[in-house]
Formats: sequence, structure tokens, C-alpha cells
Amino acid sequence: MHYTSVRAALHIASVFALYLSAAMLVPAAVDLYYGNEDWIVFAFSAFFTGGLAMAVALATQGRAPPISSRFGFLVVNFLWLTSSAVGSVPFLASSLDMGFADAVFEAVSGLTTTGGTVIVGLDSLPPGILMWRSILQWMGGLGVIALGLFILPFLNVGGFSYFKIESSDIADRPFERFSTYATTLLAIYSTMTIICAVAYAAAGMNGFEALNHALTTIATAGFSTHDASMGYYADNHAILWVGTIFMFIGALPFSILILLIATGRLDALRDPQIKLFALYTVVFVFAVAIYLRVSMGLPFWDALTHVAFNFVSIITTTGYASSDYMQWGPFAVACAFAAMFMGGCSGSTSGGIKAYRFLIVFKLLVNGLRRFVYPNSVASVRYGDRPVDDTVQRAVVLFVSAFMIIWLILTVMLAATGLDLITSLSGALTALTNVGPGLGDVIGPAGNFATLPDTAKWILSFAMLLGRLEILAVLIIFTPVFWSR
Amino acid sequence: MHYTSVRAALHIASVFALYLSAAMLVPAAVDLYYGNEDWIVFAFSAFFTGGLAMAVALATQGRAPPISSRFGFLVVNFLWLTSSAVGSVPFLASSLDMGFADAVFEAVSGLTTTGGTVIVGLDSLPPGILMWRSILQWMGGLGVIALGLFILPFLNVGGFSYFKIESSDIADRPFERFSTYATTLLAIYSTMTIICAVAYAAAGMNGFEALNHALTTIATAGFSTHDASMGYYADNHAILWVGTIFMFIGALPFSILILLIATGRLDALRDPQIKLFALYTVVFVFAVAIYLRVSMGLPFWDALTHVAFNFVSIITTTGYASSDYMQWGPFAVACAFAAMFMGGCSGSTSGGIKAYRFLIVFKLLVNGLRRFVYPNSVASVRYGDRPVDDTVQRAVVLFVSAFMIIWLILTVMLAATGLDLITSLSGALTALTNVGPGLGDVIGPAGNFATLPDTAKWILSFAMLLGRLEILAVLIIFTPVFWSR
Repeated sequence: MHYTSVRAALHIASVFALYLSAAMLVPAAVDLYYGNEDWIVFAFSAFFTGGLAMAVALATQGRAPPISSRFGFLVVNFLWLTSSAVGSVPFLASSLDMGFADAVFEAVSGLTTTGGTVIVGLDSLPPGILMWRSILQWMGGLGVIALGLFILPFLNVGGFSYFKIESSDIADRPFERFSTYATTLLAIYSTMTIICAVAYAAAGMNGFEALNHALTTIATAGFSTHDASMGYYADNHAILWVGTIFMFIGALPFSILILLIATGRLDALRDPQIKLFALYTVVFVFAVAIYLRVSMGLPFWDALTHVAFNFVSIITTTGYASSDYMQWGPFAVACAFAAMFMGGCSGSTSGGIKAYRFLIVFKLLVNGLRRFVYPNSVASVRYGDRPVDDTVQRAVVLFVSAFMIIWLILTVMLAATGLDLITSLSGALTALTNVGPGLGDVIGPAGNFATLPDTAKWILSFAMLLGRLEILAVLIIFTPVFWSR
Repeated sequence: MHYTSVRAALHIASVFALYLSAAMLVPAAVDLYYGNEDWIVFAFSAFFTGGLAMAVALATQGRAPPISSRFGFLVVNFLWLTSSAVGSVPFLASSLDMGFADAVFEAVSGLTTTGGTVIVGLDSLPPGILMWRSILQWMGGLGVIALGLFILPFLNVGGFSYFKIESSDIADRPFERFSTYATTLLAIYSTMTIICAVAYAAAGMNGFEALNHALTTIATAGFSTHDASMGYYADNHAILWVGTIFMFIGALPFSILILLIATGRLDALRDPQIKLFALYTVVFVFAVAIYLRVSMGLPFWDALTHVAFNFVSIITTTGYASSDYMQWGPFAVACAFAAMFMGGCSGSTSGGIKAYRFLIVFKLLVNGLRRFVYPNSVASVRYGDRPVDDTVQRAVVLFVSAFMIIWLILTVMLAATGLDLITSLSGALTALTNVGPGLGDVIGPAGNFATLPDTAKWILSFAMLLGRLEILAVLIIFTPVFWSR
């Protein structure tokens, strides 16, 4: 690792920190508008972090380093770490009296679009801080999409390289250059957020709530302005369906949304991961809805609405809850647990193992079984109409193995802080997959993370970052080879 | 699949069923000796199943089929299925009034050396039926070792092929022929059982108990003659340490035990999987013992004795319990959960993921991380002083991925029968890894499987077979390609 690389990575991170500091002026304006004196908190935070970021940016100016994968990993890790630090400042400075562990947890949960919260009493919070939480998630969501589209594919993390944008793809597509592509992404992300906000408002939310929930829905992130999360609107089915639809859209691959919208050709949607994602979502939703209809005698439409909302929320790793599904009986709880692993598509804001990895593992499994019978058969693994090369295959199964092992280690660490087994297992899982709420009484859909010991909050913050950066992109930082010259 | 193969596989299975029927004469003799009229049950069962097996064996006689991997899979599946059916007959015929699901569960739990039981009131059971349970486990253990040494390596299931006995190995080793090797295995397995029984007796068990527990200790199987399992001897530390040591030995690779004993060369023990198995066992035991010392103020030696016994029992997938570790606090419970995945060594009677797979996954992970920095480096994965070829690497990570997915599916299925999340999660896991008891109030160390609904017992029986045959060897049977001509 060259000194130049560290310097340049710090430079990039500090430039982004400047953007984030500038974003603090939005909640400042909101608090000013609503006549809340917390606007000073945000103005001060913006000034403080902005100044610091500016100083670091100036101090780290210089020649660009040689482009390498190590440099990429360094930038990605620095970006999320400094953003988390910057994002936590308004929480620390606010009138909420949050400790350091709490402020960092909330900022990380925001920027990683996880959505678990340590704040109790959201309904009576000043609007600025609510807006800040939503902005963190929205910007985090944008960052995740950019990561999945522009960075991870080139670092070959967890099989993302399959989704590398080939020059041949771009040739017959309407994006000649990277910057056009990025601008289109931003435009579509923003437009969808606005449409979502309008839909929420039309369904009955007031303007402020509609905007906040739209910001955290499109980012499949999950912060709400209510302690009861979307349970606040439990009787408004229109709001729940708007949420369900836009969470689902947020978990689709953005590269394909861009193509779809830019070219208007629906065949872009024939990506196999979309089919699988839609398939397991439908299976979970109908299985649990029918179960609720039969076992608890709920009207089917009510059951379907709430199951669809909560399971799409879990599968897309959003983390809203419209009701306490811990009360839905053991089958629904086990399904919720299994759903936490799932995730949506690559290049989306969702986390988890994700549909394309399940697809590749499944095909490898079928191939492996076939090879028992015909040991010399060399069937290629295909994804859609393209073969999946060996590097991607390895990266995918390695990701799944690493995911499981890290999950168990985190579970044991959380239990060491005194959390019971369900809280530890589901807490580690929900952090690693960036879902948000866990299971059980403490961190389940009706609980929150406020009462956890600080050590547990630090472990979970680390787990959220780990999950958000697809695990291996963080682990690499801890290897000696990464730092060798 | 040729008709000849099915016929021949049935023939082999029925010959083994004959052996198993003959083994029923042992509990018959025991009941006769103790003056218990249940000897008739065993005599009748032996006559009935023996007659049936003889008829099938005669009907399926004929030319040997072409040797193929498909034939191997067929034999392995038939063997465990017919043995389970035969093994359940004495339970059905006995005075215990067991239902079909119960009898099959108990037989499968025996033959797969799992050790979960549906029988309540073991302490007052006739000696014959207790002996039958122990014999099932002992024979199951022998079957598992044979499977791991002679069959799975040639079918290349889950990376077992790494442990294929190379002709070069045999040349400079004292086993010229397969039959010598098999006979030596049987001799060592029997001798160790006798030594274990003598040790148990010396430590304070009566002869009958010592023999039963020796049969189920060496097989890392876990049936006890007491409802309280080894908790019956909770104050006898000598018995617990005898159990700990022999469970540990039972989880070592038998090929290496054979070499060690036959050649007297200790360097046979330098197999990397033994080091790793010993390492994680020591880490779990000391971590939990220190935790108990600190958090509950137990005398360290007491804590160490019970932790060593229970955790070696879990890690080796034996399934005895000397105390209710659900009461040891969340850290210990989470460690018990994590320990259930572990398992011992290849070619032993233990189940689970096993040390060599963890080792290979870990090395692949390190290699994968290294490749992020040096994309063109082709570091070979080494196990000890031999490289691990690509086929084995694939088989290992595929096994781990398949294991996790099957585990989640089984969990959801169990929850659908009404079991709570901890019971479903740990029940599916403990069956799949052939540990025995699960976690929670129902199937935890202080509970048993009697109260579960029949459907759950069928699911668990299937899961035990799945785990015992390393999952993929069962899954293959359900693919169309397996049955194609």
C-alpha cells in the first residue's frame, strides 16, 4: 500500500464528507421553517464537519494514485467510515442527549440503509432530526447503488463482477459515457422518490411524512417518523400498498431500471434475478397470508396486505413493520427469519444474500449432483443467456460460506454482551443483511435497539458496515497482504 | 439406472438387514438373562425381519451390476432406509406402545448416531430395549465410519474424495488389502468400546450401564439409559471425564487411529483437521468455563468438567448432556448453538460440517482475499502437505452452501408444524448435524422429542438421514438424471 493511495482515498472521502455536511443545511432549513431552534444544531454541525472535511480535503490534495483494486477497497471503506462519523455529529449535538455509541449506530443504520433505530419517541421529535435520518438513508441508498454498479463489479466482490458493464453493452445502449450513466441514475432515483412521495401523500400521509417515508422507501432503508413504524398507518391499506410497491421497485437492479426507462423496452426486465426475486417474494407472501387466514381467521385481503407489506419489507431489507409479526404464530416467525437472508437484486439498495447468488448456488448444486452421475460432464453454469465464469462462481459460494461463518461469530459476540439467543441470532442477521428490526421482544418489529448495551451497538454497527460492503470488501482491510507495499 | 442396479442394491441392503436381525438376539438374550418377558419381542422381531430379509435377499440374487457411482448412492440410501425400517420393528412390537412415527424416529436417531429420543421413562425400561437402542447406535457408528472411509471418498461427496485411500498410501502401510483394513477397523472399534466400558465401570457405573454408554460413546451417538442422560452421574466427575475423552477419540479420523495403532507412529496424528478440531474444542470449552466461573461463580474445576463434557458432546455430535446448559446464560447458549455446526473429523462417527471443511473454506477465503490484491495470483489451497484439487474445493463450499439452505428450509417446515423458532432452528440443525438434543424448553438438554407432533418427527427423521449421508448423497436420489437410463 502506497502512502499516495491512503492520501488520495482520504481526499475522496473528505470530498464526500463535504457533500454530507452540505446536506445538513436541509434539516437546518426544515427546523427553521417549522420554527424549531434545533436548526442551530444542524447549522453548527454543517459548519464543523464541513470545515474539518475542507481542511482534510485541502491537506490531502495531490497527484492521483495508480488505479488499483486496493485503492478501490480503501476508498470504499474510508467513504462509509467517514460518512458514518460525519452523519453522527448532528445526533451528538442535538437535544436528544444521545451517547457516542447511539449516535454512531443511528448514523450507520442510516447510511447503510439498515433502518434499526435506537431513538424512542420519534413521533415527538423535531422535524429536522427526522429529516436528517431520512436524508442519511436516501444518500446511503444512492451510495449503495453506485457501489453495486460502478465499484464492486470491478473489485470482483461476492460475484458482482458478473454485472460488470461491458463496453459492448454500452455500445448498443444509450449511455456513451460513465457520467451520462451516473446522471441518469441520479435522475431516476430522484424522480422515483418524488413519485413515491406523491403516492404516499395521495394515500393520506401529510407532506412531511410522505417525503420522509419516500426517501426511506426508495432506499429500501426503513427509518420511519413514528415509533410504531408503518404500524401508525396500519388501517390505511393504500399507504401500505404504496410502500409495498416502491420497496419492491427499490430492490430491482437499477441498471435495468435505467435501461427500461431510457429505452422503454420491457425485455430488460427478463433478468433471471428479477424472476427469482419476484418468485420467492410471492411464495413467502402467499404462504404466510394463507397461514394467517387459516390459523387466525383474518380476512384474506387484510392478511395479504399486511403480510405483503411486512415480508416485502424484510425481503427487500427495508425494515418497516406495519404490525408485530412476532404475534403471527411460529410459521410466520420462521418465515420472517428465513426471509431475512434473501435480499433483492444486485445493483439495488437491498442487502442480504440476494437473488442472483441463490440462483448461481442453485445451479452449481444441480451441476454438482449431475456430476455425481456423469463425473466427466462439464456443464457450464449459465445465468440468463451468458455463462458464469469460474471466478464469479467461486466468489459467490465463498460469499455465502463467509456470510454464514461471520453471522455465527457475530451471534456469539452479541450473546456475550448478555442478549438472548433469538435477539443475538436475528440481530446479527438483520445487521449483516441490512434489514433493520430483528426478532423477539427486544429488537423485534415492536421493539427497538435503544435498550441494548453499548458494546452490542458497536458490534451491530460494525456488522451493518460489513454487510453493506458485501463482507469481503471490509475483511480485506484486516489482512496483512492488503497493507504490504 | 438399470434394473440390475436396483436389484443388486436391494440385495446388499437385505443382507445387512439380516445382520441387523441377528443382532436382535443380543437384547433377547439380555431380557432372558434379567428374566424380562420382552425377550419374546426381540425373538419375534428377529424372526420376522430376518425371514423377510432372507426372502428379499434370495429374490434379488443375481449377477453383480456394473460398478458405478449411481450404484454406490443407491446402496447407501437403501442401506440406511432398510436398516431404519428393520431397527424400528422391536420398538413397534415392544410393550412401549410406540406409534409408527416414534418407532421410526428412535431407530433413525439410533442408526444415524444422532441420539435424540422420543422415549420418556428410560430408567424403568426393560434392559433389552435399552440394549437395542445402544446396539443400533454402535452399529450405526460402524456404518458411518465405513461410509466415510470406503464409500463417500469414491463418490466425491462434500469433499470426502480428498481422503480417498491412494494405492500409494497402502503400499507403504501395513494394509495390503481392503479386507485387512476393514477387519482392523472392526477390531479397533470393538477394542475401544471395551476399554471405554471398563473405564466407565471403574469410574462407578454398573456393568450394564457401562456397556450401554460405552456403545453409544464410541459411536458419538448419545443414547443414555437415563432420562437425565449423563446428568444422572452429574456428581461423578470421573465418569464425565471418561465420557469426554472417549467422545473426543470417537470424533478422530479412524483411518489415522488405525495407522497409529498399527504402526505406533504418533506422527499420523499430525493431520491438520485434528489440530483444528482440538483447537476449536479447547476454545469453546475454556471460553464457556471461564464465563461460568465469572458470571455464576462456579468453582473452576466443576465448571470445566461440565463444560468440557457438554461441549465435547455437542461438538463431536454425540448429544449427551450432564446438565441443563440452557440455564448457563446467553453466551453459553449461543456457544452451544454455534458448536452444533462444528463436528469432528472425516472418517469418524461425528456429523456436522466437520473440521476439514472449515479448514478448506478458511483457506479459500484467505486465497480469495489475496486475489483481490493480486488478481493473477494462483495460490494453491493446501491441506497439510498435499494440495486440494479443484473438485474437492468445489465440493466443500457447495456442501456448506447446501447445508445452510437445507437447514433454513427444514426450519420453516418444522415451524409449520407449530414449533417455536428456537425449537425449529435448533431441531433442524441438531438433526442435520446428528447432534441429538436441541435448544429451548422442548427439545433442549433437559427436554426430549416425545411431545413433538408426528409430522415434525418425520421431518426430523428425514433430516437425520440427510445429515448422516452428507446431504448430497440423499439429494441426488431426487434428481431425474439419477434415474435416467
